[in-house]
Amino acid sequence: MNTRLCRMLGIGFPLLAFSHCRDVVAAVSKAGGFGVFGAASMTPEELETALRWIDAEVDGRPYGVDLLIPENLAIRTEGGAGSATLLAQIPPQHRAFVQDLLRRHGIDPDGPVGDRHRGAPDRPAPYQRESGERLMEVAFRHPIRLIANALGVPPASMLERARTAGIPCAALVGAREHAERQVEAGVDILVAQGGEAGGHCGEVSTMVLLPEVLRVAGSTPVLAAGGIMTGRQMAGCMAMGAAGVWTGSVWLATAEAETSPVFREKMVAARSRDTIRSRGRTGKPARQLRSAWTEAWEGPGSPGMLPMPLQGLVSEPAMARINQAAEGGNAAARGLVSYFVGQGVGLVEGVQSCRGVVQSFMQEFAEALEDMQSLTAE
Amino acid sequence: MNTRLCRMLGIGFPLLAFSHCRDVVAAVSKAGGFGVFGAASMTPEELETALRWIDAEVDGRPYGVDLLIPENLAIRTEGGAGSATLLAQIPPQHRAFVQDLLRRHGIDPDGPVGDRHRGAPDRPAPYQRESGERLMEVAFRHPIRLIANALGVPPASMLERARTAGIPCAALVGAREHAERQVEAGVDILVAQGGEAGGHCGEVSTMVLLPEVLRVAGSTPVLAAGGIMTGRQMAGCMAMGAAGVWTGSVWLATAEAETSPVFREKMVAARSRDTIRSRGRTGKPARQLRSAWTEAWEGPGSPGMLPMPLQGLVSEPAMARINQAAEGGNAAARGLVSYFVGQGVGLVEGVQSCRGVVQSFMQEFAEALEDMQSLTAE
Repeated sequence: MNTRLCRMLGIGFPLLAFSHCRDVVAAVSKAGGFGVFGAASMTPEELETALRWIDAEVDGRPYGVDLLIPENLAIRTEGGAGSATLLAQIPPQHRAFVQDLLRRHGIDPDGPVGDRHRGAPDRPAPYQRESGERLMEVAFRHPIRLIANALGVPPASMLERARTAGIPCAALVGAREHAERQVEAGVDILVAQGGEAGGHCGEVSTMVLLPEVLRVAGSTPVLAAGGIMTGRQMAGCMAMGAAGVWTGSVWLATAEAETSPVFREKMVAARSRDTIRSRGRTGKPARQLRSAWTEAWEGPGSPGMLPMPLQGLVSEPAMARINQAAEGGNAAARGLVSYFVGQGVGLVEGVQSCRGVVQSFMQEFAEALEDMQSLTAE
Repeated sequence: MNTRLCRMLGIGFPLLAFSHCRDVVAAVSKAGGFGVFGAASMTPEELETALRWIDAEVDGRPYGVDLLIPENLAIRTEGGAGSATLLAQIPPQHRAFVQDLLRRHGIDPDGPVGDRHRGAPDRPAPYQRESGERLMEVAFRHPIRLIANALGVPPASMLERARTAGIPCAALVGAREHAERQVEAGVDILVAQGGEAGGHCGEVSTMVLLPEVLRVAGSTPVLAAGGIMTGRQMAGCMAMGAAGVWTGSVWLATAEAETSPVFREKMVAARSRDTIRSRGRTGKPARQLRSAWTEAWEGPGSPGMLPMPLQGLVSEPAMARINQAAEGGNAAARGLVSYFVGQGVGLVEGVQSCRGVVQSFMQEFAEALEDMQSLTAE
């Protein structure tokens, strides 16, 4: 394919793969897709290391970087994630709720966390404008072919830097009104992400949102996102008018992914109805695997969710302990394990390599095209 | 098109249109689609009259009938909708809640209801097996080309009658597990209806549900449903592997539809986010336009929803009064007006004729095919 979007991104097959895992990003770009590295909540040093590694791996093949700089954030801070200012805002009942939840599942809430599950000690407070700017500085020092913002209109500095660098700036939208504002702000690529998507999402399904966004997008290319796990779905979205697809969950079940073996097993076992759109992980509605964690937060004994970024400061350290315990063989902890994943989890039948997934997409896409051509011939 | 499904139904364009309005059913079949008459909760006499009218209108063109005979119903009754046995099961607080709600919106809850808004006096209790059987008897006396069941596995009698008559039996499914059971029961056509659909629906979106159902359908043709309002979406679903589409909401905004002018105006104004999946109308989760009615039932003062069919016996007489008052110019009553409609309502831009909608589907479908063919040529 040699569409306008393909030319913008330097690719021949418009399959974009969002991942927090550098191995997935590189593997997808090497296999003929386009990896997008989700760098939100990294330190600039971590991002620098990751992008250097990706650059060496992809050998000139295109990839992108995705940041999460929300337009509206209840709490802004200059301090790091562990700063006293921020931690002091977590109410005691929320601390107690989590400690009790962990204890009831056989996890010591104050026990040590190993390196593999602990974040960088100087990790910045998540989703802050300032740390986002520092990550952008790092990203633009590398040969990225796309910069994306995952929540809301990108800050002007992102749009300006992208224009100067001559690379497109993409933004995720979950409603038609958001798309209108993004087009007005000058975004180059819209990602219409339906409510079945993993992570932060709206309520409108991909089937409805995609045509809605296309109607207001004008000449801006629109990628379809939300629930897309196969090349047939990609063909379907492009028949509807999408310029390509933006995928996420499908890469969580790959051999290269950052996901824990426990979560991958849960993905394979899960049905499409086993996800929930909940504020229990980040403070904003995000789709994730239903587990004892989401049930506790959504249930009657819940202290209620804190605004972003406080909820994440409660959930992430707990999740590190949960994952560590589950991987260590604690069956009760296993029940708490969850992660961002879309309804498409119901289509996961096993763990594959990233290259295998890209190749399946290409093959199924070609089959769908052939079937469509023979439809009218029949 | 001359696909297997097209041959099963005797059509050339697999656009199925579900409607409670005989005018829509006939107009769609005459325009080259396939009208499906939703007869649930009619009396056998009403159905007989409607099908006679349709037969005369369509002049041999194919159409179908859809019934709603749930597998699981909390309350079974031999009595009619107005029978003392059934009405006695409505708790006083539910009656009081509705009376208060109507009064607060300037509607006399005991006032007279005109013929246009009142149902037949001998209307049967909705969704009962026995009344379903009587409706089936009527339907099979007419040259229907499809019989469908809207909720759960069709009763054995429906499958047997269909087999004897040599016409296919279709069933709606909202989850992969339902599809497995339907295939086992011997259903001929599956309708995979996503959670964005109007009326009774599950939680899984069309984008995910369609491929899930296709994986277990074997050789059974699968129609995509939920959110489908355009020929491009139809092409997209068929690229994913659907044999055709089953549509509903798009016909509510046609000149022929049974919908009130007030509701049609609300549809044109509504965004895709203005619907809600609520038990407040029938007792089972059904997507409908968000209004003061749904807010009251879902809100803090709600007495809670009654099981099917009791909730319908509370809501339908109230809705008749609400529609009558709204059409009479009561602006407060207008706020309560609601009806079953899917998220696709956000794609409604005006009221069209049924023929116009069918023609748009055909044109957009052809355009999508052309675009797909040129994609790989580019």
